Amino acid sequence: MSKGTVILAYSGGLDTSCILVWLKEQGYDVIAFLANIGQDEDFEAARIKAEKLGAKKVFIEDLRSEFVEDFIWPSVQANAVYEDRYLLGTAIARPCIARSQVEIARREGAQFVSHGATGKGNDQIRFELTCYALYPEVEAPWSMDANLMHISYESGILENPKSHAPADLYLMTKNPEDSPNTPDVLEIEFGNGVPLKVTNVKEGKSKNSPLDIFSYLNEIGGKHGVGRIDIVENRFIGMKSRGIYETPGGTILLQAHLDIETFTMDKEVRRIKQGLGIKFSELVYNGFWYSPECDFVRHCINKSQENVQGKVQLSVFKGQVYILGRESPKSLYNEELVSMDVQGNYDPCDASGFIRINAVRLREHHRLQGVSSIKK
Amino acid sequence: MSKGTVILAYSGGLDTSCILVWLKEQGYDVIAFLANIGQDEDFEAARIKAEKLGAKKVFIEDLRSEFVEDFIWPSVQANAVYEDRYLLGTAIARPCIARSQVEIARREGAQFVSHGATGKGNDQIRFELTCYALYPEVEAPWSMDANLMHISYESGILENPKSHAPADLYLMTKNPEDSPNTPDVLEIEFGNGVPLKVTNVKEGKSKNSPLDIFSYLNEIGGKHGVGRIDIVENRFIGMKSRGIYETPGGTILLQAHLDIETFTMDKEVRRIKQGLGIKFSELVYNGFWYSPECDFVRHCINKSQENVQGKVQLSVFKGQVYILGRESPKSLYNEELVSMDVQGNYDPCDASGFIRINAVRLREHHRLQGVSSIKK
Amino acid sequence: MSKGTVILAYSGGLDTSCILVWLKEQGYDVIAFLANIGQDEDFEAARIKAEKLGAKKVFIEDLRSEFVEDFIWPSVQANAVYEDRYLLGTAIARPCIARSQVEIARREGAQFVSHGATGKGNDQIRFELTCYALYPEVEAPWSMDANLMHISYESGILENPKSHAPADLYLMTKNPEDSPNTPDVLEIEFGNGVPLKVTNVKEGKSKNSPLDIFSYLNEIGGKHGVGRIDIVENRFIGMKSRGIYETPGGTILLQAHLDIETFTMDKEVRRIKQGLGIKFSELVYNGFWYSPECDFVRHCINKSQENVQGKVQLSVFKGQVYILGRESPKSLYNEELVSMDVQGNYDPCDASGFIRINAVRLREHHRLQGVSSIKK
Amino acid sequence: MSKGTVILAYSGGLDTSCILVWLKEQGYDVIAFLANIGQDEDFEAARIKAEKLGAKKVFIEDLRSEFVEDFIWPSVQANAVYEDRYLLGTAIARPCIARSQVEIARREGAQFVSHGATGKGNDQIRFELTCYALYPEVEAPWSMDANLMHISYESGILENPKSHAPADLYLMTKNPEDSPNTPDVLEIEFGNGVPLKVTNVKEGKSKNSPLDIFSYLNEIGGKHGVGRIDIVENRFIGMKSRGIYETPGGTILLQAHLDIETFTMDKEVRRIKQGLGIKFSELVYNGFWYSPECDFVRHCINKSQENVQGKVQLSVFKGQVYILGRESPKSLYNEELVSMDVQGNYDPCDASGFIRINAVRLREHHRLQGVSSIKK
Repeated sequence: MSKGTVILAYSGGLDTSCILVWLKEQGYDVIAFLANIGQDEDFEAARIKAEKLGAKKVFIEDLRSEFVEDFIWPSVQANAVYEDRYLLGTAIARPCIARSQVEIARREGAQFVSHGATGKGNDQIRFELTCYALYPEVEAPWSMDANLMHISYESGILENPKSHAPADLYLMTKNPEDSPNTPDVLEIEFGNGVPLKVTNVKEGKSKNSPLDIFSYLNEIGGKHGVGRIDIVENRFIGMKSRGIYETPGGTILLQAHLDIETFTMDKEVRRIKQGLGIKFSELVYNGFWYSPECDFVRHCINKSQENVQGKVQLSVFKGQVYILGRESPKSLYNEELVSMDVQGNYDPCDASGFIRINAVRLREHHRLQGVSSIKK
Repeated sequence: MSKGTVILAYSGGLDTSCILVWLKEQGYDVIAFLANIGQDEDFEAARIKAEKLGAKKVFIEDLRSEFVEDFIWPSVQANAVYEDRYLLGTAIARPCIARSQVEIARREGAQFVSHGATGKGNDQIRFELTCYALYPEVEAPWSMDANLMHISYESGILENPKSHAPADLYLMTKNPEDSPNTPDVLEIEFGNGVPLKVTNVKEGKSKNSPLDIFSYLNEIGGKHGVGRIDIVENRFIGMKSRGIYETPGGTILLQAHLDIETFTMDKEVRRIKQGLGIKFSELVYNGFWYSPECDFVRHCINKSQENVQGKVQLSVFKGQVYILGRESPKSLYNEELVSMDVQGNYDPCDASGFIRINAVRLREHHRLQGVSSIKK
Repeated sequence: MSKGTVILAYSGGLDTSCILVWLKEQGYDVIAFLANIGQDEDFEAARIKAEKLGAKKVFIEDLRSEFVEDFIWPSVQANAVYEDRYLLGTAIARPCIARSQVEIARREGAQFVSHGATGKGNDQIRFELTCYALYPEVEAPWSMDANLMHISYESGILENPKSHAPADLYLMTKNPEDSPNTPDVLEIEFGNGVPLKVTNVKEGKSKNSPLDIFSYLNEIGGKHGVGRIDIVENRFIGMKSRGIYETPGGTILLQAHLDIETFTMDKEVRRIKQGLGIKFSELVYNGFWYSPECDFVRHCINKSQENVQGKVQLSVFKGQVYILGRESPKSLYNEELVSMDVQGNYDPCDASGFIRINAVRLREHHRLQGVSSIKK
Repeated sequence: MSKGTVILAYSGGLDTSCILVWLKEQGYDVIAFLANIGQDEDFEAARIKAEKLGAKKVFIEDLRSEFVEDFIWPSVQANAVYEDRYLLGTAIARPCIARSQVEIARREGAQFVSHGATGKGNDQIRFELTCYALYPEVEAPWSMDANLMHISYESGILENPKSHAPADLYLMTKNPEDSPNTPDVLEIEFGNGVPLKVTNVKEGKSKNSPLDIFSYLNEIGGKHGVGRIDIVENRFIGMKSRGIYETPGGTILLQAHLDIETFTMDKEVRRIKQGLGIKFSELVYNGFWYSPECDFVRHCINKSQENVQGKVQLSVFKGQVYILGRESPKSLYNEELVSMDVQGNYDPCDASGFIRINAVRLREHHRLQGVSSIKK
């Protein structure tokens, strides 16, 4: 008698293979689920391995386009950055994978989902919160961390926060010391705060679909060593951990989006939206992509992007992104107003009045508190 | 009969020379004031010029150390960045200069202060707000923008936000394309959130005083082309303008401070302090350095820095700053807790309980709203 | 030759009558505009007076329904309260009146608008900002404060913040000492966060249209002396002033809306929305109803109200509103989950895990900082 | 052989008596701890009962003064209100009790603490988080909810959120319908944002010590039926529950403190402090009184109270608190500036300039987006 069916997020690696075998031994039927979100992996080899280990069925889902459109694009709109530096690459992948896994679980009538994420990290939380949110009746049998030796080995070095990361750690980005000596110049066109097209200005090459755009930005960013960070971050559960990340395409998009957004968005709307973006980043980091508050914040951020359209030119070189210029039919930049040669309907006396009114409060404060409070 | 004495912030340039002459013509006594905050200028030549044009007295004040200690250091503590990118270099110089100018005005019994900042920009506001806050009885006679041809010429090109900045615009930073092909590796030691010492790891050279530290970081950052940005920003008065800035030393310090701060500061304190830092940046940008709210925010931020001490190693290369490692006696990073090999007193069951409690609300929401609300 | 046409917000009182005459003398054609937003006034007498004083035309507009639906209802959704106490009655009336005045100005081809609000208060700002936002080409000729004796007389007493307000000051609310000795019990039904119906439970009487509902709540609140406050507030321009307000219907709605909102809105959405409501209140107080940021905030708040529906029962008595109970088809309150007698699928062990995970950070902090930091 | 010593927070009631017996049966030595925080209880009877049931020792601690000074006063400074209505009475009692309990545990060398709070509520969290924060090595053996029949009976009615609360539920406050027909008028004097003295203006009676002041405000508030609320609130763990609270003294203090604070605190400092107060309320509600972030927030709030001093007159009547007037040597209210009869150094032209500068952005927005975006 089977104890029920488990949908296992399977990677083909040692950990999830052990979990597969262990779940079988415990009396479960196991369906292996492989999500392709762009990682470099031999999915057919993994399918064969899963079948050999006793998986009743194997599903391989190509989630790349929906990952870009449903998860990366909203993060670009939000300028999502956790603790001022981390671009949330892993954090947004988990709800994408878990959403698909839950769909399979519902379709196959499975009562259980399982995954290989450790009990100490954020990924278990992100995975399980998504599953509970989208499929409240589901259970997640405890995922043993069968063998983390390989990871532990690497972690071993990096766990000392003082140790420098080894040069061969990075997979997506070239070492800037070895990257090309001439920049690539890109033009990214935005509409509703998301990229519609990217053009390599010198080569004339361009990409139009979300997946192609993002892949191309990863390629160019990777070629020039863009987007490497080495940080200590605060996990949801409160402990600090060290993270080394490479986000080449995301880093280019963050810079370009910040530019076109400030160019086209009202100053005060931007301030409010900036706060919502910080909230969004925390929610996503903590695993609450599928929550009423994240739905609400995403809705509000999306609303703020209505006029965020236009083109940004930038160069990518030796680990850096340099904004070169921008244009937009929705620009709130008024060349005449800003020019020092043109007075327009800007009356300098108004500025004096503005300043004096702003100073009413400061003068009153000074009158009452005296100079003493101002100088330390 | 003199109409009174004016302290004029004098640069030696055409604009403020015209203002000096004009003020004399209007019947004021003029005292010229030159503030040395580290700019590249021939102060003695300016003194002679001011005297020739009829200045009653000339004061040259070396404000470099107090600029670093009283204005730059609090901004480092705050991770002060305006609109996600601008490091506020000009914005923090104004209150420093105006404070000194007001001191002279009080000492000399002058009723007026004057400056060359235009009526359309932020600098007039920053200058005048500081003067009113520190010397409420003072007046600031209207500063005519005598001749802005030179500036207008440059502005002319950059005022079109689409135009690329000319390569020879930058004064402090090398073009990263021409910068050295080997990185410099620095170790910065922090105490109370401000740098106490910087050491060039390979060369063994180190700097200890605030002014020396900051100057050295400017030198190294400049040599490697660090800290250039081209942005469109929102001025206090609501119009958008383009700004091109280079902040080599400030950019290195921002990265290093973010690193040591996250390493030593409690997660939730950091979140609250992050909000205060954004507020601080807006206040400073808008000219409210000397205001009750900025005093309050600075006090709170300074309190948050009590444990921000330790050393950060970083490399500077081709326009980028790469954090390499960090150590601190106040570290909240627990190598044992984070290790996957050590269970310690971390019980995996607790994580499951934590997740299930966090999911109570999500499940309830799902129960009531149905899947429809979650999938778009 | 006329200098042009002015639309004057005319009240029939001494101040605006003087302005009317003065504008005529200056050579303007004057169109008098009277807005009925529910104040107790003889509009026909005012029309005759305006015509006698030389108004070219007189428009009397009944704005009561649009005031309730377009301005009061969004404020109810926002729980709009300025500085924790003021319900913004005057602040939301100004943009309503100015919007209508601008419509007339456009229709009549008038280049000018005028009003009787003083140069020291918020109302001038609110009025003029609305006009500039909705009709950027308009001008507002300076409104002289012809004769403020009567107001000054009253102000004279209240300007001393220590003086108690005279008992006969209030117009809308009974003195609670003289109000009925038995409460009225109301049931208010909400949909999308605004009241759809109010029923007097004992009398069986009910009201359905926005204007009738709000008028009835004013009547009942006024009868029981609800909604009087005596505060010192911070005006936009930075000075403090004393305000005495009576908002009977608004106070009842605030309490009822807070209740049904917390009953039906997710906890974390509520937190974010609370911040947006504070922002909304500041914007409205400062005169920015018609601004991109207030549009944005209103949109987000309105989105948050989708599930805010249900019925609240409350009693009104001697200046107080007491919530008695509530029900809703969208309630997120789960009677079973909350009951101590029912375990349901809530496992007490989960709470322990939740607490221990929350304590990881606290224990680490204690381990490093010691007890000393906790006890003062 | 004893399994160790448990400090049990003992109330003398059925629940904690059962826990005492059960702990003994499990092989623990039990020390009973009774905290007097002002509740109406026969402590000597409880002592005898505990001894009879086998408690090894019994400690009765009078925590009333430290409860007022260390916990209530900081909450008054913060204007602490959870979800716009709840004054946090229970939430601030828990860390006070647990702090004392931990002190005894350390002194007696006990490894365990125990309490009678249920696993579904906030109180278990508040209790245990405090213990872990102050005594990281401690354990808290699971507290069985021996018999909650009595509570469940009452809860049974109130758990239906639609049911009205029975009239005899309230213990501290008179029903406003039966309260006196004449108000009491109080004058409360503040220093550093906390009450220093309360005087009954008519009777001439006054109180000076923190405990006496707070007890007297409870007495007067209770006599007039002040501070009753019936709300649905969001618990930390995400479920909604209904709460009926009476906070007579706290409600008077909240109103008085809001008044004197706005009178003496700079407008912009107040805005920042308001945000910190909301944060403080959430932290305290969730049990994080003893956390680095709550320490930090309390420090900042305390700093903001430096000038919050002066006297507030108010009347208390039929469930309401009416502010009548205020005075302060630190008032930022300038009677001359606010007066319409005195021009002072306030130039009406400045207001026009101020408004026009504020409108620059609005006009630009209108120019680009058109009227369509403003009218729905």
